[in-house]
Amino acid sequence: MYRRWLLAALMAAGLAGAASAQSETGIVEKRSFEATGHTLRNGTTLPTLRIGYQTAGTLNAAGDNAVLVAHFFSGNSHAFGRYAADQPPGYWDAIIGPGRAIDTNRYFVVSSDTLVNLNVRDGRTVTTGPVTINSATGRPWGTDFPVVSMRDFIEVQKKLLDSLGVKRLAMVTGPSMGALQAIEWAAAYPEMIDRVMPVIGAGEIDPWMLNWLDIWEQPIRLDPNWQGGDYYAPGREPPLEGLAAALKIVTVHAQDRASLARFGRAIPEGQDPARRLADRFEAERAIDAAAMARARLSDANHFLYLTRANQLFLNEYPSTEAALARSQARWLVVASPSDRVFLFDANRELLATLQRVGRPADLVEVTGPLGHLNGVLGMAPLAERIRGFLAAAP
Amino acid sequence: MYRRWLLAALMAAGLAGAASAQSETGIVEKRSFEATGHTLRNGTTLPTLRIGYQTAGTLNAAGDNAVLVAHFFSGNSHAFGRYAADQPPGYWDAIIGPGRAIDTNRYFVVSSDTLVNLNVRDGRTVTTGPVTINSATGRPWGTDFPVVSMRDFIEVQKKLLDSLGVKRLAMVTGPSMGALQAIEWAAAYPEMIDRVMPVIGAGEIDPWMLNWLDIWEQPIRLDPNWQGGDYYAPGREPPLEGLAAALKIVTVHAQDRASLARFGRAIPEGQDPARRLADRFEAERAIDAAAMARARLSDANHFLYLTRANQLFLNEYPSTEAALARSQARWLVVASPSDRVFLFDANRELLATLQRVGRPADLVEVTGPLGHLNGVLGMAPLAERIRGFLAAAP
Repeated sequence: MYRRWLLAALMAAGLAGAASAQSETGIVEKRSFEATGHTLRNGTTLPTLRIGYQTAGTLNAAGDNAVLVAHFFSGNSHAFGRYAADQPPGYWDAIIGPGRAIDTNRYFVVSSDTLVNLNVRDGRTVTTGPVTINSATGRPWGTDFPVVSMRDFIEVQKKLLDSLGVKRLAMVTGPSMGALQAIEWAAAYPEMIDRVMPVIGAGEIDPWMLNWLDIWEQPIRLDPNWQGGDYYAPGREPPLEGLAAALKIVTVHAQDRASLARFGRAIPEGQDPARRLADRFEAERAIDAAAMARARLSDANHFLYLTRANQLFLNEYPSTEAALARSQARWLVVASPSDRVFLFDANRELLATLQRVGRPADLVEVTGPLGHLNGVLGMAPLAERIRGFLAAAP
Repeated sequence: MYRRWLLAALMAAGLAGAASAQSETGIVEKRSFEATGHTLRNGTTLPTLRIGYQTAGTLNAAGDNAVLVAHFFSGNSHAFGRYAADQPPGYWDAIIGPGRAIDTNRYFVVSSDTLVNLNVRDGRTVTTGPVTINSATGRPWGTDFPVVSMRDFIEVQKKLLDSLGVKRLAMVTGPSMGALQAIEWAAAYPEMIDRVMPVIGAGEIDPWMLNWLDIWEQPIRLDPNWQGGDYYAPGREPPLEGLAAALKIVTVHAQDRASLARFGRAIPEGQDPARRLADRFEAERAIDAAAMARARLSDANHFLYLTRANQLFLNEYPSTEAALARSQARWLVVASPSDRVFLFDANRELLATLQRVGRPADLVEVTGPLGHLNGVLGMAPLAERIRGFLAAAP
């Protein structure tokens, strides 16, 4: 504890050497961006919207050394750095920082919360969605909030980048839903993007994934507390059980056999699944508890809006190929062979489509015991590969 | 229609030739087996139990030419044959019949419904479970029905085989949950089994699968109509929405991207998912409708008991290896590379464990666009391989 405090103090004072800078993370500040009168892609206008964001590094005079990092389904802007010395680092901190693969001594790195972000109750996330007060009524929007698409996430990020003076993106990247956003960016603003690195994503939300996203959200709609989304009124309870069940699906789907193996088939004290239907295995209890903890920091309606935004991935293009044909960037597709959400084969297809439309593109594997989450928590071994991708001419 | 009727009539009269016998299926009869005072593995005694079954071929005098086929999670005894000439054939009819891979001219093939079978309301399935009237109360058992394990399925099948005079099994096989039953058989009665062919199964229900089975059933427990399982009383409604949601998960999980690709991203007339949260894609509607149709023939409590029986796979052994070490049989493991339920890698591990304990074992792939279901509906290309497996000395 003392060592950790000391190192953090030294870093804060700028006294830690290069080695420490490589292994420890800087403090980042969470900021808030606001836009008024923002018109969504479906034509609806939001009187006010706010999203959170964080940056590291310095934008150069040309405004062309920016890297945008988009977050995964249950994530937020916290991709790098710590909010305080005794707080945990962001999910991609291993590859973002001074001297790291995405070198904040060279690049101005930006990461923002999406609209309808899941983590509305975690005290750090700034977002706009069903939980937000609708100024017209003075009450939360609930399911009166307009449907938003993946492209809407990009349009809000574009306004944020404009406000920061960013002219070009040296790279747009992100894991999972972040990969979908990177691809939307490449299609929406091809002229301002040098490189795209979609990590554990896919080139399309096909009928199988449309249904999986629906499966994720089913428990929320079945929870009697959901009440058609109208649970914000005083005296009503949020659909916590349904939301926890939904988050349990996401949690298990995003991992793999190896990452849960530690639980074995252990049975908790006092439980007997072979005799009582309601009794449970330790492995179930552990995931249930983790999911419920997440549910308390999240919002069920935001979950529903978020799955829909994913279902609407590239919905403005006749096909993935038509969208990718717009890109002028160099691509590095990163995929996990044990991914059970966005299958490795789907990433092979993404690569093939990129090559068919003439984009320079490579595919690299991110491996480990975590399944899909290898692309969130297991990126460190790809540091040199990413460094090389950024160093090569776009 | 007339041709079909004619061929069926000829076959029923024994007038169709060998070629027709190869391409058309015989009529099979669904029978019922009853046992009284059956004690389950957890010590509970069922006063009466009944299960349905069907047979084809003739048991020889030695009683050693029998093949037992166990069914998958949402299946029943209907593995082969037709109940009437104008009815569809069983799920493995392509490999079971006169002259086929599992040749009913040589083998006496038996297939039975499990306890707590899902399809209680389909008019063909005979099973005992929560829907059954508890003679002590005159009302359905509901969740007072005792928990049953995969091993209990085997014990009931053993009594059925005893009643039929079967002494040895030339082979025990089945897809998915049927593979789990085949493995339980090999461990429980090693001295009476020559060959085991687990198809699209796994050697263990590990923590990841324990949780997936729980994910499958979550929607039922969330449906307010479930009422803790007590929904059989007059005036109450069964938890159809929750059961349909559960069956939707099973349906999507058991397929793969290719088998749903036909729906594309089509949007039904009058629906607009980009504008209205409640609106849906065609791909979602199609699976919802199929799942609801299945739900109307099924029972929600039976679903819960069935997932538990799967969670209790090999629960009487310290490990899979300890269970398999008991086997004296020759093994053919059949696995689908695009299986999203029982992963191909899990089947490689099953093979490795069999080889480690000294069992002769091979692994063969069943391929196709159907994911897990390749092992249910895509077995025809493996006919010669299965024929060879049965012909080789055990």
